[in-house]
Amino acid sequence: MPEARAAQLPPDPDGRVRAVIESLTPQLDGGRFPVKRVVGEPVTVEADCFADGHDALVVLVCWRSDAESAWRATAMTPLGNDRWRGTFTPDVVGRSWYTVTAWVDPFRSWRQELARRVEADDIRVAGLVGAHLLEDAATRATDAEREGLLEWAARLRQEKDANALKALGLDEALAALAARHPDRRFAATHPPLPLTVDRERARFSAWYELFPRSMAPEPGQHGTLRDCAERLRDIAEMGFDVLYLPPIHPIGRKRRKGSNNALAAQPGDVGSPWAIGADEGGHCAIHPELGTIKDLRFLIGKAREHGLEVALDVALQCAPDHPWVKEHPAWFRHRPDGSVQYAENPPKKYQDIYPFDFETDDWREMWLALAGIFEYWIGHGVTIFRVDNPHTKAFAFWEWAIAHLQRSHPEAIFLAEAFTRPRVMHRLAKLGFTQSYTYFTWRNTKHELTEYFVELAHGPGRDYFRPNVWPNTPDILHEYLQVGGRPAFIARLVLAATLAANYGIYGPAFELMEAEPREPGSEEYLNSEKYQLRHWDLDRPDSLARLIARMNRIRQDNPALHDNASLRFLPIDNDSLIAYYKSTEDLQDIVVTVVNLDPWHTHSGWIELDLAAFGIESGHAFQMHDLLSGARYLWSTPRNYVSLDPERAPAHVFRVRRHSRNEHDFDYFL
Amino acid sequence: MPEARAAQLPPDPDGRVRAVIESLTPQLDGGRFPVKRVVGEPVTVEADCFADGHDALVVLVCWRSDAESAWRATAMTPLGNDRWRGTFTPDVVGRSWYTVTAWVDPFRSWRQELARRVEADDIRVAGLVGAHLLEDAATRATDAEREGLLEWAARLRQEKDANALKALGLDEALAALAARHPDRRFAATHPPLPLTVDRERARFSAWYELFPRSMAPEPGQHGTLRDCAERLRDIAEMGFDVLYLPPIHPIGRKRRKGSNNALAAQPGDVGSPWAIGADEGGHCAIHPELGTIKDLRFLIGKAREHGLEVALDVALQCAPDHPWVKEHPAWFRHRPDGSVQYAENPPKKYQDIYPFDFETDDWREMWLALAGIFEYWIGHGVTIFRVDNPHTKAFAFWEWAIAHLQRSHPEAIFLAEAFTRPRVMHRLAKLGFTQSYTYFTWRNTKHELTEYFVELAHGPGRDYFRPNVWPNTPDILHEYLQVGGRPAFIARLVLAATLAANYGIYGPAFELMEAEPREPGSEEYLNSEKYQLRHWDLDRPDSLARLIARMNRIRQDNPALHDNASLRFLPIDNDSLIAYYKSTEDLQDIVVTVVNLDPWHTHSGWIELDLAAFGIESGHAFQMHDLLSGARYLWSTPRNYVSLDPERAPAHVFRVRRHSRNEHDFDYFL
Repeated sequence: MPEARAAQLPPDPDGRVRAVIESLTPQLDGGRFPVKRVVGEPVTVEADCFADGHDALVVLVCWRSDAESAWRATAMTPLGNDRWRGTFTPDVVGRSWYTVTAWVDPFRSWRQELARRVEADDIRVAGLVGAHLLEDAATRATDAEREGLLEWAARLRQEKDANALKALGLDEALAALAARHPDRRFAATHPPLPLTVDRERARFSAWYELFPRSMAPEPGQHGTLRDCAERLRDIAEMGFDVLYLPPIHPIGRKRRKGSNNALAAQPGDVGSPWAIGADEGGHCAIHPELGTIKDLRFLIGKAREHGLEVALDVALQCAPDHPWVKEHPAWFRHRPDGSVQYAENPPKKYQDIYPFDFETDDWREMWLALAGIFEYWIGHGVTIFRVDNPHTKAFAFWEWAIAHLQRSHPEAIFLAEAFTRPRVMHRLAKLGFTQSYTYFTWRNTKHELTEYFVELAHGPGRDYFRPNVWPNTPDILHEYLQVGGRPAFIARLVLAATLAANYGIYGPAFELMEAEPREPGSEEYLNSEKYQLRHWDLDRPDSLARLIARMNRIRQDNPALHDNASLRFLPIDNDSLIAYYKSTEDLQDIVVTVVNLDPWHTHSGWIELDLAAFGIESGHAFQMHDLLSGARYLWSTPRNYVSLDPERAPAHVFRVRRHSRNEHDFDYFL
Repeated sequence: MPEARAAQLPPDPDGRVRAVIESLTPQLDGGRFPVKRVVGEPVTVEADCFADGHDALVVLVCWRSDAESAWRATAMTPLGNDRWRGTFTPDVVGRSWYTVTAWVDPFRSWRQELARRVEADDIRVAGLVGAHLLEDAATRATDAEREGLLEWAARLRQEKDANALKALGLDEALAALAARHPDRRFAATHPPLPLTVDRERARFSAWYELFPRSMAPEPGQHGTLRDCAERLRDIAEMGFDVLYLPPIHPIGRKRRKGSNNALAAQPGDVGSPWAIGADEGGHCAIHPELGTIKDLRFLIGKAREHGLEVALDVALQCAPDHPWVKEHPAWFRHRPDGSVQYAENPPKKYQDIYPFDFETDDWREMWLALAGIFEYWIGHGVTIFRVDNPHTKAFAFWEWAIAHLQRSHPEAIFLAEAFTRPRVMHRLAKLGFTQSYTYFTWRNTKHELTEYFVELAHGPGRDYFRPNVWPNTPDILHEYLQVGGRPAFIARLVLAATLAANYGIYGPAFELMEAEPREPGSEEYLNSEKYQLRHWDLDRPDSLARLIARMNRIRQDNPALHDNASLRFLPIDNDSLIAYYKSTEDLQDIVVTVVNLDPWHTHSGWIELDLAAFGIESGHAFQMHDLLSGARYLWSTPRNYVSLDPERAPAHVFRVRRHSRNEHDFDYFL
């Protein structure tokens, strides 16, 4: 089947439509939500297609971006059992559509039967039928090909020798010519399905989170956006591509929290950046002590020079002195005493935070204003947003807002910070969030990690839920990091960076291995930057910065790590060791990771590789090149011994270098 | 939650709709096709329902028949992980609809928070909020309850003691009262899903097929419908409830086939009943040698007296002398020489059969005429149709025709005789066929049977594909029956009757163990009734009629066998023995079947029962009552020995009789 460049979808079917299209994959909730891909990533479409009886079908996969009116199309091929498969590659960021169309093709059916005919009379009658079909095709053809079709028809009519006639009818060139002029009047077409085409960063990214106010070169000073700009070189050298800043807006003064979340702030306490809004402005203002909009633009510009994008945090909530509390009282719920209802989860109260009331009669105005926050920052060059607690805002708002924003800014990326129940997290991903925080931080054993990442890579969310995994965040210092020391930080870094194509760390707390909780049993940091300024000794010799740089370099260099779909866990006979691999489809890049999850003891065990899946012939030697340490091992069997001392190196990240027939194989000795 | 009798679905949602409904089950292709149940069979509906934040939800399952305008509704209960479940029981045959509706309930949310409040001031403010909610509910209440709500509101406003106020607010009667007047303005409702509600016969039936023309009491005579009526008592005594007749229409004379499918008929050859139509009429006429429409009505009436329904065969194809060939030439395809295109599958030709052309421009007229065939016979009292080769007619026709017919005749049952590819068979079931022929005839080993019946009972077709299984048909005499003798016939009978709630046999060939193929390697019968008259010696002493009667009696007596959903296979350590059970949901009826699939040798083995699933306490004895032989065995462990000699009895059909605490348990000694 040649590719039909600008195929039109057929008009409404009538009773003569005989083809059926069922079980089209991928699709999400029957087309209610889009599946997600990135530009240049192939979309493999499958469907059950068949018709009554035994006639031949033509099946095409069709696609177009929102901006195109014509569908592009390419032939699907049968896999057996009435299943068909076809692939297309979206090349435009934004909303696209795809569908499958199928029809009973009389000429193909005729040809298929002709091949089986044996009686001369039968073949002669078939010749006349075929001639008629070609004359019919000629009415749909352009001038040049019309002549050709009529000529073939005439030959079929004139040829009287049955064998010669059969050979004519089965001519490949004739089949190709006829296929270019199909009768699609009775084609069946599946309702088109939506596809979100994101840019590459949506699928593969490394985030670095920092508090700008802690970036002052002098201890005790309030850091600024300009100070952040000074840090860009280091962050870029560590290999990150997204610099994520907690809210940079004026911080409420009313009911401000003090250090370590004290109920009452002391004079000089800087408050929580998530208590948004004060006299100086709300969600579209910058905290004066951080700088100005000009400083932000400077930071964004400098970041770009270093290959970094700046991501802002959008928390849709207000401090009591946010200007909107007075300007739009209808957007908040009020208590019987006339005061504004603060956030609460009885008996807990958060008097410094006013949630928006998504049941307000003024919801339309409020939605526009909230979406306007994103629009404002996009206007100033921000293209990535980390959204705080989206699960406590109405789902319908997010679906509308993200679609609305991405219509004009398809490059915008939204990361959902929803640490909540699975169905809710998945709903947000379906509604349009580009990436999603996960439970990774709380998955620390081999069993937990295996089960969770099998689900993330291969479960129902694989087409729409893009995990972004974090070993730590300003809200979560897991006990594993509190007690495990340097090996724990390294293990979690390697796990995050290799298990998930999108990951991030909260620094400098991470590279400096900050591990002290506010109190025993708490996952909060002691002296958390959420409530106070910190000063970090970035030049500490034990900093993990160089290791992080190496890890991110490995990620950049190995396309196997740019996606999660290929993730497979490998058997290893020690519960403290976890092993898995990712590979590119052409097997040119295979990365095997082994991590010792016990930060205190050396563990060893036998790992079992699937050499057939690696494309390695049985009995051939292959090199395991540890990209972290630089060490190389020559293996030749599926079962191999590994041993990891957490003090020396809690992980291997092996690139599998195959020993090709040519002993001087480039890859092998690279 | 009380049952809301005539709940209205809410109007179109707006941006304030916060509840979400996802993954509603059962559903078929996103509601494109109905799922199937029978009257009185509960429908268990599940859905993921949740809202943003932490507010309380109310979730209802709603249903109505096509004839009702109001929805009935009942509360769903949470199963955990945001999954909800509710059940309804359809009570009207025909098309019904069901859906789920959910909303955030402010009063429930308020109550849930009140329960956790501890500070007195907090409780007093909450009291005022609650009073306001009740006053709001009062605006939606009828006179009597309005007073009650306002009274409660006043009490909440007046009570100043925090503890007393809290107790008031948490009062159960108040909760029930408020729940009766919910604010459903912002309810989310899933698009309603279709449900086909059939009568019981659709789920549980035993069919007996015979050729009326072979029913003459004298050999060599052409049997009649009146002769059939004479056979009704025997058929009813064998326990069947459907008497299925191959086509009873005038048989074409042009190109009539002779005995054993000879290309040319000899004088006196009666032809194939599937070559429909001659001078005497077409699909709405009766073959004169069989009788008249009056005779058919007599047969149908007599059958009803015996608890039997008459099923007719509808084969949508014409003999060359069918009146429609002349009256409606546009309904057939024509060859270049002007002749009508006969059926063919090159190099095979079926010159005695003209298929309808479903791509004709006159398709609307043709569809009406074809549906008219069914309407005609329904008008004469026929309510069950076996449809011949539906997969060679356009799918769209079937979907329209069955919906059209069942709209006025919801009691009509359609059995699809499509022995073809799995997707095609499933499509026909989705489109509306009530029951479907299966691959049972070709599934003879333990592995084949297990795999196939697990798929039928538990696979994706379980909600719409109702298997009707046949050990033999006039077209299929499987090799297993050709060579296996009496034990093979018994084994296949027991398998069919216990594995599938719907089954049938082609008799008297079956009970008289007709086993001779037309030629070696063929599945066709020698001297098949399809092409000639036969005379059967029904009184032969070796007839299986009494065994069949016993088997059907067992089916009637044991509700476990009336459905397939409970089917579970049991381990048994011999590949020639197959074991499985079915049970009612209350475990009052459990039937364990064991069949020796080897018709020549005795086989024995250890069967492993799942006593917990049977509700039998470990260590308690229970009785295995073989309903076929009458023998009783006392077992007390899960693992037990069975041995089956095919010459004596190739199968056990055990009813499990539990030894209750009362030693004189009725069931046990029954």
